[in-house]
Amino acid sequence: MLQPLKIGVAGLGTVGAAVIRLLDRRANALAAASGRGVVVSAVSARSRDRDRGIDLERFRWHDDPVALARDAEIDLFVELIGGENGPAREAVAAALDAGKPVVTANKALLARHGVDLAERAEKAGVALNFEAAVAGGVPIVKTLREGLVGNTIERVYGILNGTCNYILTRMEAEGLSFEECLRDAQRLGYAEADPTFDIGGFDTAHKLAILTSLAFGTQIDAEAIHVEGIAQITTADLRAAEELGYRIKLLGVATRTAGGVEQRVHPTMVPKSSPLAQVNGVTNAIAIDADAVHELALVGPGAGGEATASAVVGDIADIARGLRLPVFGRPAGELTRLARAPMQAHKGGYYIRLSVADRPGAAAAIATRMAERSISLESIVQRRQGARVHGGDDPSTVAGTVPVILITYATTEAAIRSALDAMMSDGYIGETPQVIRIERE
Amino acid sequence: MLQPLKIGVAGLGTVGAAVIRLLDRRANALAAASGRGVVVSAVSARSRDRDRGIDLERFRWHDDPVALARDAEIDLFVELIGGENGPAREAVAAALDAGKPVVTANKALLARHGVDLAERAEKAGVALNFEAAVAGGVPIVKTLREGLVGNTIERVYGILNGTCNYILTRMEAEGLSFEECLRDAQRLGYAEADPTFDIGGFDTAHKLAILTSLAFGTQIDAEAIHVEGIAQITTADLRAAEELGYRIKLLGVATRTAGGVEQRVHPTMVPKSSPLAQVNGVTNAIAIDADAVHELALVGPGAGGEATASAVVGDIADIARGLRLPVFGRPAGELTRLARAPMQAHKGGYYIRLSVADRPGAAAAIATRMAERSISLESIVQRRQGARVHGGDDPSTVAGTVPVILITYATTEAAIRSALDAMMSDGYIGETPQVIRIERE
Repeated sequence: MLQPLKIGVAGLGTVGAAVIRLLDRRANALAAASGRGVVVSAVSARSRDRDRGIDLERFRWHDDPVALARDAEIDLFVELIGGENGPAREAVAAALDAGKPVVTANKALLARHGVDLAERAEKAGVALNFEAAVAGGVPIVKTLREGLVGNTIERVYGILNGTCNYILTRMEAEGLSFEECLRDAQRLGYAEADPTFDIGGFDTAHKLAILTSLAFGTQIDAEAIHVEGIAQITTADLRAAEELGYRIKLLGVATRTAGGVEQRVHPTMVPKSSPLAQVNGVTNAIAIDADAVHELALVGPGAGGEATASAVVGDIADIARGLRLPVFGRPAGELTRLARAPMQAHKGGYYIRLSVADRPGAAAAIATRMAERSISLESIVQRRQGARVHGGDDPSTVAGTVPVILITYATTEAAIRSALDAMMSDGYIGETPQVIRIERE
Repeated sequence: MLQPLKIGVAGLGTVGAAVIRLLDRRANALAAASGRGVVVSAVSARSRDRDRGIDLERFRWHDDPVALARDAEIDLFVELIGGENGPAREAVAAALDAGKPVVTANKALLARHGVDLAERAEKAGVALNFEAAVAGGVPIVKTLREGLVGNTIERVYGILNGTCNYILTRMEAEGLSFEECLRDAQRLGYAEADPTFDIGGFDTAHKLAILTSLAFGTQIDAEAIHVEGIAQITTADLRAAEELGYRIKLLGVATRTAGGVEQRVHPTMVPKSSPLAQVNGVTNAIAIDADAVHELALVGPGAGGEATASAVVGDIADIARGLRLPVFGRPAGELTRLARAPMQAHKGGYYIRLSVADRPGAAAAIATRMAERSISLESIVQRRQGARVHGGDDPSTVAGTVPVILITYATTEAAIRSALDAMMSDGYIGETPQVIRIERE
């Protein structure tokens, strides 16, 4: 058997401590599976004294993660610091440049600097593994990078942020407002004190940027993603979705289109019978459409110390076995520049909730504006005040208006936006329309 | 770049032809991902002349798959012949003994001879990959063997046979009998002319035997599996399940218990809200409970030429990259002998449908027999003839009896069997009780 693989772990938060515990607990199984032992040899963190429930005396200590990354006595650097710049980036680059393979859970770092880091890894001839960066314990990176290599992928999409899914699930199940559910999520530790990164869709966008690169062989381009968050979703929307046979989920979606790759993050109506509609709470799920395997879905924990550590340990074992893959599935120099499909060209169905002036001609004017752009309607729901579809507690109900909900057949974003602009000009619409895109299976 | 990997494919049915087409279509992507080209060099099949929609003139031909396996000009042998003995077994053993890695989709071969073949692969220092043998295009072998290596697995279970799931889904959705749905499945090519292997649960058992070995590090022991098929399921059971909040699925379940590993295949009540309950038609799904990742589920196509070929090509790419793993996750010599947990010790809830004599004292006698064994009841449903729970078309309705449905809280198989025997002796039960185990999430 080979010499044990000596690991340096930078960052000893929940995930880092869980990685150390798992490596202890599974030492024999890891050695049997990998053909060599795996031992933590040195660590680095901001505080040496914090009680993490693990004995750190066994390990050499570095105050500076970059010094740990360069430590000649470690064979593999594990980065669990977080952040797209600063020490995480410096330490990962230093490890790769020193010829050491790296395992990271840092989605922001990869979304921003992935191509640069892939080039460094290739130049040094070492692995850069990042299963934990997308959907925590769900082995989606391995599935895309290895298992589906025989497939041309058409679409990858999913629920990638547990905070948002927790909030939407509770809003739907209990009729609570976004603000109430967000407060509970914060109380339970599912959301940060500043929740913008999660609820604004930016965390989902980072993960989607990585999935897009793996699925389509493109350079990561997080800037190309159309991002909308969930703060505008009301209980009225959730109830209307329920009545119309849908649920609302924050999805990240990357699709191959004739005009390039479309990448978008936004609240989405999914049919109640679809697999993604069944995914509740903080669970993550990713679905893939591909030419050979057709449809595949993976469902599991998107966060949590142990689940994320499970993915980190899987990555470590792959390196212990000598596995070295092109970082994003093909050599960095062969990743194509992503051709951005403009959001205005997006094709799909739409849910539109309007506050329409309660006077003659309004409905006709709306219908005309849609028809002029060849937008066909699957459903129109219009109810008087107090009817169930909007509810009396809904802040979006404006005096002198009635809510009208439209579900369209497939059309383009450009046509929808143009129709809504025309309706606003007509003066029949009381406030900004709510627009939620529909994603079909 | 290395020399191209030269492949020999034995068996040119639907899957074999799809593998050749996929390798053609994805040649560039495979080379980019693996660092070397992958080319089919020689083939073998029963008929050379059959039109498979692919040009075979490009390949050397062997009438005998064993000769192909030993062909000095191939680097990798792909076995798609099928069958647990005969040419498939001989050819795989010959290839391994000749020092060639093997990719196979043959679950029966692995379920019966897996340990022997793993020993041969190890002795020769070559890979034996078999992603396609379990759940077709779903990357469950890779997930268990690589991704979850940091986890101690507690349970692996799932819908592993598309034929059975298709039949149960249609019986439930359309109220059709087992026989009608089976005939349709045969007409659509989802079931064989002799359907015993699928509907009797034996195909599921082969796949479960492989999953058990991967999950628990045990020697494959297909003989230890308790197997029941779906032929006894009636529309009355499906309707009762629906009313009680369950669906019926044929599951394969392997669980770590204090008394050993419990392996069983049988029709199972799963809560309607569970992920497995949402899996309809020929789709497969596998769920895993593990200490670090908690719960993970994979859902996708369990059969079909292209989906199965997707898994075969993934295995080929791993070998092209130089990956060589212990066949069942650890060296063959370290696989432990499976400690069989006896079925009588199984613990769980039960659905029991009885035809009870329509006379005083029957209900009391049944309740007494359960209470004597400390079996607690979650629900009792008793309805007169014609009530919805059994329906007039149900052949299980016996004159002079009323159907009684019991749902128990967790108890043991031994207690249930003993209680039913006592009820039969009491003379209140008109025919053999229907017993369906309940599987909780």
